[in-house]
Amino acid sequence: MEKLTCKEFSPGRRFIGCLPHNKDIITSLEDFCKENSIQMATFSLIGAVTSFTIGAYDQKQQVYVTFTEKAPLEIVTCTGNVSLKDGTPFIHAHIVLGDEQGKTFGGHLFSETLIFAGEIDLQEFTGKPLERVTDKTTGLMLWNL
Amino acid sequence: MEKLTCKEFSPGRRFIGCLPHNKDIITSLEDFCKENSIQMATFSLIGAVTSFTIGAYDQKQQVYVTFTEKAPLEIVTCTGNVSLKDGTPFIHAHIVLGDEQGKTFGGHLFSETLIFAGEIDLQEFTGKPLERVTDKTTGLMLWNL
Amino acid sequence: MEKLTCKEFSPGRRFIGCLPHNKDIITSLEDFCKENSIQMATFSLIGAVTSFTIGAYDQKQQVYVTFTEKAPLEIVTCTGNVSLKDGTPFIHAHIVLGDEQGKTFGGHLFSETLIFAGEIDLQEFTGKPLERVTDKTTGLMLWNL
Repeated sequence: MEKLTCKEFSPGRRFIGCLPHNKDIITSLEDFCKENSIQMATFSLIGAVTSFTIGAYDQKQQVYVTFTEKAPLEIVTCTGNVSLKDGTPFIHAHIVLGDEQGKTFGGHLFSETLIFAGEIDLQEFTGKPLERVTDKTTGLMLWNL
Repeated sequence: MEKLTCKEFSPGRRFIGCLPHNKDIITSLEDFCKENSIQMATFSLIGAVTSFTIGAYDQKQQVYVTFTEKAPLEIVTCTGNVSLKDGTPFIHAHIVLGDEQGKTFGGHLFSETLIFAGEIDLQEFTGKPLERVTDKTTGLMLWNL
Repeated sequence: MEKLTCKEFSPGRRFIGCLPHNKDIITSLEDFCKENSIQMATFSLIGAVTSFTIGAYDQKQQVYVTFTEKAPLEIVTCTGNVSLKDGTPFIHAHIVLGDEQGKTFGGHLFSETLIFAGEIDLQEFTGKPLERVTDKTTGLMLWNL
């Protein structure tokens, strides 16, 4: 791809609500999407976690390097999208966490990241959802644009 | 709550504009919501501050630990929502700040945080707004879902 | 300006897609806006970079202090807007980057910042776009509200 390439979508339902205490963020989101037949969406959430797993992509080795820690931290920001992977809703999200000194940590969000409290704003899109396929250049699962 | 629980909202007005120089972010937003009869919204803003107060929730003691500093910093990201608390618009926002070396600080946004310059994108929602009530599990004021 | 001042906009097209590998974020976005006649928009993107240039505004000297580094980092969050400057689409964006240890860096996004992979959600707005003019108080190019 030589330039920014997009598909146009129409807004579907707009959901605002709370994430469940002591549950994994990604699993909660996946379950919500399956129950509500959401196949394409973007979302933003703030709140706090009791433990987290985040990572970064090793661009040379083409693998994610992750680490897990148990710590009560603010979710300072978490932005992501929902699209299809192998025919089911797949969550891609990045997160910034903050401690009591305001120190921040961030990266690609993985399970298991347990919610203390969380508030989400999710915009569904209608139309044919994007699907993730392997991208040869990066080794990542990117959209079939 | 055992799972992600949301209410559906319809989009209302979409406001894009500037925050006032040398004023507090939360107070400015509260005043704007009152003047424009906004009871439910989500927003995102970027800009810079001249001083800030941020904090994190002590999940054991169930109190916010905050700190204040006078420093010219970028607002790298600030995401939040508007809903009702005691019948009036209440702002819940988290913020990431950055200095000239790119060092970041982040957490729950408190007053007083003074704006140097700021640009906001606020989406109002129509329908019965969410209201904040005390959540026994976390000690936080969460939504009545 | 003594208070938060906004203009109301109507939603236009909603674009979701990928940023091009090994290209500059801002240039890619500007080109996309020109090709698609987008004059007013807000966007959010996540992904990864191979190198970056970020900065912060020196509020006393009224100049941006920037620095450039070659490093494979996650784009943990990047939020911005499109409006007019000298009659053409201008990108204003702030970014948080994260490394393999979860360490974050953030600030005002500059060219050149090269994309490894990136996913964008861009909301166009219709109606008369905002234009950037010099603000005497801050020395910044702010909106003509």
